[in-house]
This record gives sequence, structure tokens and C-alpha cells, in this order.
Amino acid sequence: MAITLQGKSLIGSHRGAIGGSTFRAVAPATGETLEPQFHSAGAEEVNLAAQLAADSFSIYGNLPGKVRATFLKTIARRLEEINEQLVERAGRETALPEARLRGEVGRTCGQLRMFAEVVEEGSWVMARIDRAEPDRKPAPRPDIRSMLKAIGPVAVFGASNFPLAFSVAGGDTASALAAGNPVIVKAHPAHPGTSELVGHVIRESVQECGLTEGVFSLLFDSGTSVGAQLVQHPLVKAAGFTGSQTAGRALFDLAVRRPEPIPFFGEMGSTNPLFVLPGAAAAQGERIAADLYASFTLGAGQFCTKPGLVFVERGKPFDLLSATLRDKVSSATGFTLLTTGISASFSRQAAKREGGTKAKLLARGSARAANAGASATALLFAAEASTFLSNPELAEEHFGPSILLIPYGTKQQLLECARGLHGHLTATIHGTPEDLRGHGELLQILETKVGRIVFNGFPTGVEVGHAMVHGGPYPASTDVRTTSVGSLAIYRFARPVCYQNFPDEALPEELRRQNPLGMWRAVDGKPSREPA
Amino acid sequence: MAITLQGKSLIGSHRGAIGGSTFRAVAPATGETLEPQFHSAGAEEVNLAAQLAADSFSIYGNLPGKVRATFLKTIARRLEEINEQLVERAGRETALPEARLRGEVGRTCGQLRMFAEVVEEGSWVMARIDRAEPDRKPAPRPDIRSMLKAIGPVAVFGASNFPLAFSVAGGDTASALAAGNPVIVKAHPAHPGTSELVGHVIRESVQECGLTEGVFSLLFDSGTSVGAQLVQHPLVKAAGFTGSQTAGRALFDLAVRRPEPIPFFGEMGSTNPLFVLPGAAAAQGERIAADLYASFTLGAGQFCTKPGLVFVERGKPFDLLSATLRDKVSSATGFTLLTTGISASFSRQAAKREGGTKAKLLARGSARAANAGASATALLFAAEASTFLSNPELAEEHFGPSILLIPYGTKQQLLECARGLHGHLTATIHGTPEDLRGHGELLQILETKVGRIVFNGFPTGVEVGHAMVHGGPYPASTDVRTTSVGSLAIYRFARPVCYQNFPDEALPEELRRQNPLGMWRAVDGKPSREPA
Repeated sequence: MAITLQGKSLIGSHRGAIGGSTFRAVAPATGETLEPQFHSAGAEEVNLAAQLAADSFSIYGNLPGKVRATFLKTIARRLEEINEQLVERAGRETALPEARLRGEVGRTCGQLRMFAEVVEEGSWVMARIDRAEPDRKPAPRPDIRSMLKAIGPVAVFGASNFPLAFSVAGGDTASALAAGNPVIVKAHPAHPGTSELVGHVIRESVQECGLTEGVFSLLFDSGTSVGAQLVQHPLVKAAGFTGSQTAGRALFDLAVRRPEPIPFFGEMGSTNPLFVLPGAAAAQGERIAADLYASFTLGAGQFCTKPGLVFVERGKPFDLLSATLRDKVSSATGFTLLTTGISASFSRQAAKREGGTKAKLLARGSARAANAGASATALLFAAEASTFLSNPELAEEHFGPSILLIPYGTKQQLLECARGLHGHLTATIHGTPEDLRGHGELLQILETKVGRIVFNGFPTGVEVGHAMVHGGPYPASTDVRTTSVGSLAIYRFARPVCYQNFPDEALPEELRRQNPLGMWRAVDGKPSREPA
Repeated sequence: MAITLQGKSLIGSHRGAIGGSTFRAVAPATGETLEPQFHSAGAEEVNLAAQLAADSFSIYGNLPGKVRATFLKTIARRLEEINEQLVERAGRETALPEARLRGEVGRTCGQLRMFAEVVEEGSWVMARIDRAEPDRKPAPRPDIRSMLKAIGPVAVFGASNFPLAFSVAGGDTASALAAGNPVIVKAHPAHPGTSELVGHVIRESVQECGLTEGVFSLLFDSGTSVGAQLVQHPLVKAAGFTGSQTAGRALFDLAVRRPEPIPFFGEMGSTNPLFVLPGAAAAQGERIAADLYASFTLGAGQFCTKPGLVFVERGKPFDLLSATLRDKVSSATGFTLLTTGISASFSRQAAKREGGTKAKLLARGSARAANAGASATALLFAAEASTFLSNPELAEEHFGPSILLIPYGTKQQLLECARGLHGHLTATIHGTPEDLRGHGELLQILETKVGRIVFNGFPTGVEVGHAMVHGGPYPASTDVRTTSVGSLAIYRFARPVCYQNFPDEALPEELRRQNPLGMWRAVDGKPSREPA
């Protein structure tokens, strides 16, 4: 039973109107325009979605975690049921290979189930109980209990490079729904069909679970007005975004300039510096170079965690690494990027870099002839560390299969480069145990520059788990205290609420004296599952 | 050994220069100008403080929690050693009564020791360990470990109304230092002498504990330029503020408009609605009114948690409550406020309210004759619920001993009033168990409006503990996800850092396989103190 795409926004149980501007998806592999026509939502539709979300919040936000868990698991099951249609449509809209998209469906469902488990177990709410001391002098201490509660309706922006895992039912949506927030998704216009399929699944799940309609809406827009309206809407209380620095910062600015500013969680570009230390270069240089090639061209280099800057000692280490990379890049066939826009931007940046004097092109792959526009060739650049230090634009993200090698002279120069980095999602160190012992200061610097440090591995392939951090100092993220991947991501969409001297029956279940949910709670500051 | 005040900023181990503008504290009880003269810091001094803080961060931020705990306890001990001088100077600068100030010294030291305990125990870092699965298909899972680390140099703004507990060594400073951040305090110009005494104590503690000098600086300024420079300084990574909505919002705007926006935690004004439900009014009306009088005039009404709006059913409940309050207010003698500025603003707002037609003055206390300017009389106003609903300015904070009664007609009208509230720090409900059962919807609305709900008590007297939440939706706080009181406050000044596939010896102690600190950690999502 394939779902028929209608090209209209899903607003609670309503459908968007036909009206306003329209657009179609374009297959990046062929340039072909795909059916159906999609209708951008109008201001009244955004309003309706926000109002329905606000109306549903008082119910949805107070449902037991188990009910929200069932909802999330229902979405996952239903996504799996339309797996074939999803992979087929997403493949046409993104040109991402089938295996990758199948993996992404799995990852999306895995994320939903992870958050389901987290809210079913319940301890994530950080229940805290400071018991009364009626005999305390000079004044008795009252009973005080607090926990995290949902923050309110959340706007989510679908990302272009993960049409499933960071899109309509992606990590932002899953974590916001898990915490108890209604979600309004602004679909990414590059994969509206995939978005509608997923939106349809979520809406069916809302109905199957008997939830109020406003828990979920999906809005289409080929431009920026729906997004701008969403982050400024008085009923929207937080937003999650994955995308470019330009778009992310523009939305962040709108969110914080509201009369009532709201938290805006933007995960933006990153160049993910990678350091090949001398011992590792000598022992493993070729293997590292081969794996590095695979990492920076994975998904045609369109990952937020693509290693884009590689620091390696001048001389033999650099020669070894660059020789292997040169071979790999030169023999690479072309890549298809997600959109013609991304392809154009990739070429523009490449031309600027090639035309300049700061970086040198070491190798270039061959082009893909059959491609109607969204194509790219792999590019290997190099720039001296001293040049890198005086040209901050060399650290800018070059989204696509491009990498910049930076040969350095001395450890002092390497440390200077590290100190000069702005925020990134990840940093990677390849080194022997001796390398690491000799570079303690490098590690200490990198801890302040990124959210995740990888040792002898590669930053692409972000594990979804409890310990993952996918965020970092600006401009990697707009809020350095958060992650957009992993179970910690739920904390973006929750706020603490405190109850003083409350009768048991008026307390949320999580805070009741008998601990009916058997959760871990902090009782007078100590972890406990006992009644308190 | 009394400390001699020098009137110069403390910048690491340096002293501020004599130059730039000068100011003196004024005793609000007498109008007398107090010695010595204080020198506002200049731009170069702010720069130096920021540079020293940044220089010390890599060391201080990586010290074991036990060392930071010793530092915090040293500050507490040394504050107690100068207890008499502190209370004497703070008394002259603020006109707060001696008992209150003695209590505040105790509270300040209690806060420092609470954070010392938290970081000594260590589990607050939320260590998370996802163990490797080398045999996972299709790809092995790497070992991933994450924890919270310090965010970087923090700017703290001293508050006028708590010269100790929310000032130089107050909750913001204690939580930021506990998490591993150097702190630069901008002293409140109303109590510079008290600030210098406390700053001196912190500096001595830095030296006693052998810490690098940049861990703490204290800057004086009678105006706004030091504060503005601090929140915009590239080396400052977060800021904590308690004060007015106007100043808080202005600083927030500067913080989020930086090229690299930083988290700004402003705790601003609040009017703290209080609801006396019918059953409670009938059974306990007089007692509630008497306690309410004590609460709204405590500290001359200069608490962020002062109950400023009281909703009570029209007719007998209102008559009973207002009669008692009228008696209390009419027979009140005058109050001395913290500064002549606060006093002028209190009178201006009162005159506006009295001169208008929206609220009616029910009673006024007598003035204090001997007062040179910073005086106020208690004021009791009333406004009909329908008037309140159509005049949002009636919900604005009136800082000082003033309260507004709002008689309502029906439960529906009461709910409408609750729904119309903006964010506050607290809400309070006085009710019988029956009242509470009949007002479930009120409770649900209030949960979205405030950070703490008090039942049959009063919001003033904020307990410092693990469960306390002193924050709320805007404009109570600039970040609804945080609290500025209690051990949860430490999370404002920390960020997660993740280590993938790291050798044990390169990991922070908190994440090592043997769990050498014996902390609670989340291992594959489950709390555990076992090696992992």
C-alpha cells in the first residue's frame, strides 16, 4: 500500500491548502523534476500548526513516559513498514546510495527506539528530592522536589544531508517528542517527498496512539519565510536546526531577538581538524591516508563531521600521506552532490581556492560525465601552516569531497594552529602512545575547541548512544552546552520545575513518595531508588 | 586584622590603577557618603582580567574536583573569619538588618560548601560510557566516553539585593568556580566595600590554594561599560547575572549578538503570583494574610521572589484577606530600601499606579522620618481581575514593599488570569486538599509559567539545595532551562566533551576504566559505580 504524495503540508489532522508558491523536488543525479508539486505553507497555516501544538501541549507534555515511548516505537515500526518506498523516494531526491539510505532508515528507527527506552525508564528527568526537616533551626526546611518537564512546542528544521536521520523523524524530532513537546517540522525543500512520507507515518502514529492532533505538523516551504515565522512565533518555545552556518545564524538571531527569547539549537558547519602525529605517520601513514580518503569522500563529503583539515609534519610524514591521497584522489570518479545548489557552491569555493595563492591544488578526481548539474570531483589541497595561520578563511567548511593538508614545521607551530582554531564538532588524533604522551598540550587545547575527540579513528560515522556528543563551540553549534545526537540531546527540550511542600497526590508520578516508577532519583543529593 | 579597603579593582594578583571615574558607596539609611573612593576599571583592566582568566583556564579547568572543593571551602572559612567586618560594612552599604546579613554570610558559605561537596563527590559531571563492541556488524562500535567540562572564563554580575549570597562570592561565582571556570566579577556599585572585602578573601584563597592568579578578578564600575565589555570579550565564554529586566536584557542582547554568541544566564524580575483558593481563604484567611504581609515586606520587599500579585475570590474571601492586610499595612512603619535609586523608582511606580484608574490604593504605611532618601512605605493595592486581564502593566514587578490584590469572580476568570501570566520565578497556592483537587487545571497552567510552585507556604526564603529551582520562563530568566540557586546551577557553566577510542591514560580520571574516583557513571545507559 504505497502512500500517495499530495504535496501539501500536514497540519495536525488537516492538510495544507493549495495556494501560495509551489516547487518540485529535483533528482540531483539526472536533473529530472519529480512529481508531485509541493505547496509552500502560508502564514495562516504556520499559525494553525502553532496553535494546535500549543493546545496539545498541556496533554501531551503530561502523558506518562511509557505512552510517549509507545508513540515513538509506533513511528519506528511504521517507518520500517514503508522502508522500500522511503528508500526509493529518498534515493531519487538525494542521489545517496541505497545501502546508505537503508542504513539511515535503520538509524532513524534506532534513534526513536533509544529515546523510547530513555523515557520509558524515566530517570532522565533528573528527579531531585530534598526532604523536609521540620525541626531545623532557625526555620524548618520544607519538602522540595524537582524534575525536568517538557519546554513547549518545538520547531525542527530538516537537514539536506540526512533525509531521514536528521530530518522529519530525525534526532531533533525524536528527542523533542520524547521529552513531551509537540513538534512542528519545516521540511527541507530538497527532499519534500521523503519528508511527506515520514510526516504521513508520524501522523498515522499520532492517530494510532490516540494523541491530540497538534502533537505533530509538517510544513513545506521552498523559501525561508515559514522557518522565520516559526522561530518567531510566540507559541513556539524552542527550535532545533541542522544546516549551514548562514541559515543557522540567521534563525538564531531571530530566536534571540524575540520579545521572549527562546533556546535555538543550531548544529552548523564544521571542518573537523585531523592530526597525524609523527609516530603514526611513520608507522601507518599509507593506511591512514587510505582510510582518510574513504572518510572525507563518504557521502560525497557531505557530512558535518567530514575531516576537512589535516595537520601533518612537513617532510617525510607529509610526503607519505600526500602521495597516497594524491593517488586516491586522482583516480576517483565523480560524485553526485545532494542538490545543484550545493554543487554550485562547492565549485565556487573550489575555484576561489584554486585561483588564490594560499592553497595549492595537489590532485583532482575525474568528473562524472552523465551528471546533469549536481556533480563534483574530489579535490586535494595543501597550504603551509604559516599560511593557514594568517588566512582564517582556509578553515572554512568546504562542503563536499575536498580536503586541505597542512604541513607544519615544529610542534610549537602545530600548537599555534590548534590554538587558532574556532569551534568544530570533532577533532581527530592519529598517534602512537608515545605521540599522545608527547602532545598532552594539543589534547588540552582540542578539548576547548570541539565536542568530540577521536583517537586513531575517523569522525564520520557518528554513533547514536548515551555518551555521544555531536555539538561543539561556535560555529559548530549555537549552544556549546548541547548535543544533537545521542540520548543527551533530550536535555535541549526540557526545563526544571520545582514543587515545594506539595501533597503527594498533586505531584507528578516521578516525584511521589513511593517512587511508583522505580526510577533513580537524587534524594538529598544521593542517587536512590527507594521511597522518599 | 581588619582588611583596609583600597577602592581599586582586584585583577588576578594585581590592583586596578587609580584613574578613570570614581565613586563612593552611599549609606541608604543616612544618605552619608562612605569611604573610600572606588575607581572604575578601564578597558585595559578588563582586558587584563580576561587574559589572565583565559591563561589560567587550561590549568584550573583540569584540576581534580577535590582541589577545587578545597578552594571553595577555603573561601567559606575565610569569609567566616571576617564575618564581623563583612556584616558591619554590608549593613552600612545596604541598610539590611544585622540578623539578615549574618544569615546571608551563613548562606553564602553554605552555598560554597554545597558546591565543594558536589565537585568533591564528582558524579555531577554526568560521566557516560558506551563500551566498545568490536564484533558488532556491519561495523564495530568504538569505545565512547563523555563528561561535562568547564565552559571557560565566566563573567558574574553582583546583585544589589543580596550583597553576599548573590554577589562576589555568591551562587553564580560558586557554581562557576566549582565547575572549573575562572570568574571575573563586576561588583555592584551599591556595595563596593562589601565586594572588595569578599574579593580580597577570594584572592587570598587563590594564593593559599596555590592556584594561578587569573582564576579570580573583581572589577569596579559605577556605570555600564565594564559589564558591556565583559559580556562582549572574546575570551569570556558565559555570564551570570541577577538584577533588573532592563539591565539583564541589555546584557543578554550583547551576549547573543557577538560574533561567537555565549550563554547568558540572567535572573531578572518577577512578581510571583499567589493564589488563595476559597477553602483556604475561609479556613485560614487571617493567618495567610498575616504571613503574606511578612513575606512581601521581608527585606523591605526587595526579593526576586516577593509575592506581588495575590488572586483571591471576590466577596468574603477577598474581604477577609484584605481587611487583615489593610490593618497590617496601615500600622507599618517605614522601610529603608537598598539605594536611593531603588527608592525613587519605587515611588515613581507607586505614584503612577495611584494616579491611574486601574488599581486602587487600599492602604499605605507610615513613612520613616529620619530617612535621607532611600525610604519607602508599605503599599496595598487592588485591581479587579477583568482590569488585570486587560492591563498587562499591572503584572510588572514593583520592587519594594508593595502588593496587588486581584479579586476574581469565577474559576474560569481565575484560569484566564493564570493563562495570561508571563514567566515568573514562583507561583504559590494556598488551598485545602479539596481546593487543590478542584484546581488541577490551574496547577497545570502554572507549571508552564514558573520554575517553582509553593503549596501552603511563601516563596520568599529560597532554600539552597539539590532540588531547588530559581529560574523560570522569560522574563524571570533569560534561559528557562536553568536555575541560579541550588546545585543544579552548576550545569549552566559546563559543556559535554566526548572521547572516542581513547587509551585509558589519556582520559580524564572521571572516565577511566577503573573508575578511580568511585563515581556514579552511566555505563551503556545504566547507573553504575563499577569499572567500565
